[in-house]
Amino acid sequence: MLRFLTAGESHGPELVAIVEGVPSGFEIDPARINEDLARRQKGYGRGGRMAIERDEVQIVSGLRFGRSLGSPLTLVIENKDFKSWQKRMSIDPGDRGEAVPVTRPRPGHADLAGVLKYNLEDIRDVLERASARETAARVAVGALAKQILAPFGVEVLGYVVSIGPIESRTPDDIGMADMRRLSEQSQVRVLDAEAERAIIAEIDACKKTGDTLGGVVEVVAHGLPVGLGSHVQWDRKLDGRLAGALLSLQAAKGVEMGLGFRAAALRGSALHDEIGYD
Amino acid sequence: MLRFLTAGESHGPELVAIVEGVPSGFEIDPARINEDLARRQKGYGRGGRMAIERDEVQIVSGLRFGRSLGSPLTLVIENKDFKSWQKRMSIDPGDRGEAVPVTRPRPGHADLAGVLKYNLEDIRDVLERASARETAARVAVGALAKQILAPFGVEVLGYVVSIGPIESRTPDDIGMADMRRLSEQSQVRVLDAEAERAIIAEIDACKKTGDTLGGVVEVVAHGLPVGLGSHVQWDRKLDGRLAGALLSLQAAKGVEMGLGFRAAALRGSALHDEIGYD
Amino acid sequence: MLRFLTAGESHGPELVAIVEGVPSGFEIDPARINEDLARRQKGYGRGGRMAIERDEVQIVSGLRFGRSLGSPLTLVIENKDFKSWQKRMSIDPGDRGEAVPVTRPRPGHADLAGVLKYNLEDIRDVLERASARETAARVAVGALAKQILAPFGVEVLGYVVSIGPIESRTPDDIGMADMRRLSEQSQVRVLDAEAERAIIAEIDACKKTGDTLGGVVEVVAHGLPVGLGSHVQWDRKLDGRLAGALLSLQAAKGVEMGLGFRAAALRGSALHDEIGYD
Amino acid sequence: MLRFLTAGESHGPELVAIVEGVPSGFEIDPARINEDLARRQKGYGRGGRMAIERDEVQIVSGLRFGRSLGSPLTLVIENKDFKSWQKRMSIDPGDRGEAVPVTRPRPGHADLAGVLKYNLEDIRDVLERASARETAARVAVGALAKQILAPFGVEVLGYVVSIGPIESRTPDDIGMADMRRLSEQSQVRVLDAEAERAIIAEIDACKKTGDTLGGVVEVVAHGLPVGLGSHVQWDRKLDGRLAGALLSLQAAKGVEMGLGFRAAALRGSALHDEIGYD
Repeated sequence: MLRFLTAGESHGPELVAIVEGVPSGFEIDPARINEDLARRQKGYGRGGRMAIERDEVQIVSGLRFGRSLGSPLTLVIENKDFKSWQKRMSIDPGDRGEAVPVTRPRPGHADLAGVLKYNLEDIRDVLERASARETAARVAVGALAKQILAPFGVEVLGYVVSIGPIESRTPDDIGMADMRRLSEQSQVRVLDAEAERAIIAEIDACKKTGDTLGGVVEVVAHGLPVGLGSHVQWDRKLDGRLAGALLSLQAAKGVEMGLGFRAAALRGSALHDEIGYD
Repeated sequence: MLRFLTAGESHGPELVAIVEGVPSGFEIDPARINEDLARRQKGYGRGGRMAIERDEVQIVSGLRFGRSLGSPLTLVIENKDFKSWQKRMSIDPGDRGEAVPVTRPRPGHADLAGVLKYNLEDIRDVLERASARETAARVAVGALAKQILAPFGVEVLGYVVSIGPIESRTPDDIGMADMRRLSEQSQVRVLDAEAERAIIAEIDACKKTGDTLGGVVEVVAHGLPVGLGSHVQWDRKLDGRLAGALLSLQAAKGVEMGLGFRAAALRGSALHDEIGYD
Repeated sequence: MLRFLTAGESHGPELVAIVEGVPSGFEIDPARINEDLARRQKGYGRGGRMAIERDEVQIVSGLRFGRSLGSPLTLVIENKDFKSWQKRMSIDPGDRGEAVPVTRPRPGHADLAGVLKYNLEDIRDVLERASARETAARVAVGALAKQILAPFGVEVLGYVVSIGPIESRTPDDIGMADMRRLSEQSQVRVLDAEAERAIIAEIDACKKTGDTLGGVVEVVAHGLPVGLGSHVQWDRKLDGRLAGALLSLQAAKGVEMGLGFRAAALRGSALHDEIGYD
Repeated sequence: MLRFLTAGESHGPELVAIVEGVPSGFEIDPARINEDLARRQKGYGRGGRMAIERDEVQIVSGLRFGRSLGSPLTLVIENKDFKSWQKRMSIDPGDRGEAVPVTRPRPGHADLAGVLKYNLEDIRDVLERASARETAARVAVGALAKQILAPFGVEVLGYVVSIGPIESRTPDDIGMADMRRLSEQSQVRVLDAEAERAIIAEIDACKKTGDTLGGVVEVVAHGLPVGLGSHVQWDRKLDGRLAGALLSLQAAKGVEMGLGFRAAALRGSALHDEIGYD
């Protein structure tokens, strides 16, 4: 059973993940982890930091001559702008004077809950860890997991199905290869060129007025064996495990499996027709 | 930290839960657990079994003179129709001839995955445990948890917001007491009498044609302290923990926190206006 | 991965264990669990309660027609003298007047730590759960585990190597079958008839003066595959896992693996000679 | 609740530990961790490597201006001789030719079990992680834990009570301060100068003939609150938790709590007299 912990502040020296339970003998290529880290940094209209830092993983344990040893892998992602934060994020008590405390909690963030729970005065002490930058470590762990699954023909990919009010159409009967190709080509990771243009216009409009946008992502896994998870105990149910992982992502606020809420809005017979089940 | 395991087959002698980590000194009243068990069995248009069996919890450990001891509580819910299943669900190898094997897996259930994963021949060996009847044990655990939270002023309740295509309106500025009262009065646990009539008509129509309906439930917790969960590690995030628990429920296919998917369909500014945040 | 929780007070209605993760398709015979429960109750010079109650397991989940289903097994052991404790161990607040509080903590027991930690007034609220009677549930879980291991040729047995100052000799080159036979024949579960006589005399002497005796047990597992546990992470080391389980037993105060402390008292070369390793 | 994972091979670039659950606001001084790391490297007659490498911890997360943030701490200990192993321990498949495979498993080590379990060909792939060098990471974690406990007046120390056949006497009525001072002064960490001389002579004799020695260590914790661990569930018992941690240490083969096996060799009354309990 895989288990992992991540660590690291957004402007600290590095993000780290220890991944325990990786089986031995798997070929792990850091370059393929870097591809997913780069994908995480793409995105039309993203802020400046994403452009500056090109994340790169270093694997400092658990791997020898390109193969996993069975021992835990340590994935390290250096924060390339740590230089300019060294004093403000210093571990040295002598540098305390360098702090520029953040005192205004942002709504919808962990800021307020964090300072109250952990009895802290500078909101930076919370936001540095609560930041979505932490997901870089999780992307690396996920990219590692995909390399373990690949030899079994398991493939996982994600693409955007809506940004703000604009929905992107998923072409009928599209296969994994085309989904991958189209999403990679798109600046906003959609499968639908028309939607892409509308989304880009929407993003541009929002940038001008300082507005923000959310979106919805679809994740598809292909080639999985039957029987993942288990019906025998509440905490082993597959849907629960997946939903728990997905809603642990910063800013994620909803998750659906299969037809999701759509299934709740139809009679069973209509649903049956819609999905063409027979 | 509470942890619990449930056990028991749908037509076996009983459902059981061991709840570990309950603090000492809390007043636990089985009658209040039974109220929630009764609520679970209500529902306009439910099948016959629900009517026959009135679930009742027995607490056989961890409680003395009405107060928790700090030791694990065992919650037992007898299956009242076990008598008529005794032979078919017998633990005795000598009764194997009494089995009437189920061999046709139902789509959307654990049936097929279960027999393949556990190498079983009779689908009953899967469906007995995969059955939503198991949630009776979890309702009991939840009802117990509510009694631990009550002295701190924490209240949790749920009501129905849609069944099939019919949405129920939640009255503006409604408080917990009214939500509780209205949902308890409603045959379909909605807060909106008009929607109730429409839902009942829809259920009646579906019963006639043998059709089925899903629905959406809203759960509200009131009086919680700030700082539940934590931003520091992926598996301690509150949203993830809640979503993991909710999608572990049989037939649950989606979960939203706060505005959920609605928030993804609006610009930040529109969202801001909609929730009246200032 | 097996996990289990036990519950139940010593004079409550029953002891319970839920055992999660039992694979499907294993033949589980309650009679063989009862054999181990009976063995637990034997012992020259034991108190009266052991004689009165003959523990018997009931399996109320996870088993059908003699085979495990993959779902959690619930093992129930009724406390046969609950009748005479029903009022004093009642869950009903109305019976509080029936309590005869225990107020004098016994040294070396959980009594004092328990009432302080759990803020209780009647030591019975602690001792009922801290009691070694709880091991009946664990014996049942262990006996179940042995039935899962048996088809793979794994056998586990234990015998006494000393009681008080009297050591029992383990015959050279003795095999599992003889160890089992001799320990079963012995009233004090030793492999050495001479030591048995001396131990019985020592027990008789202690009974006369109201004194007590401890002892040392040796556990042997045979037929295990190579590679249990793992060197890769501190909490997966086999010795640590075994030691953790063994010292969780009430009154257990030491554990040795292999030569244990003996190995620390010899030079490597002497050790080498002693175990005849070449 | 603290949890931690360690990672790193003995001759890899570094050892790492992520420590999750450290409360916020504690003063953590890396220098005090380094003191414990230095103590680990002392020892009369130790091999060359211990002398060369002076372990130093770097804390790369979870700490700011000398105080813990509540977020996970990452402790990194660079392996200073990695330079000379860079090719042989490379993660690059292209360096595979640099390997000098170890093919002869050492008895009593994880070598054989490891290569069989993990299906490896070069024993180095096992021994690098199974090596007791890994304990450097755990010493760092323990030293961190001591800094969390210190403000509450909790102190933990260890000293040697025997090496090979030579036992060291613990002075009567000695306090923590003297135990610390004497053990720090001693080259072999005993509290008894006479025993020290005999032990040094024994070590010298063993070095000459290429022999080896084991030993026994006593660990004392002072100032702990009542109620650590719990009697309510088998896996929360204090003795079991401690024993599990202690026997997870490489080469540790026995553990005793309190009087340990000595208590099993005496009648209760004699024990009572010996410890002067009244």
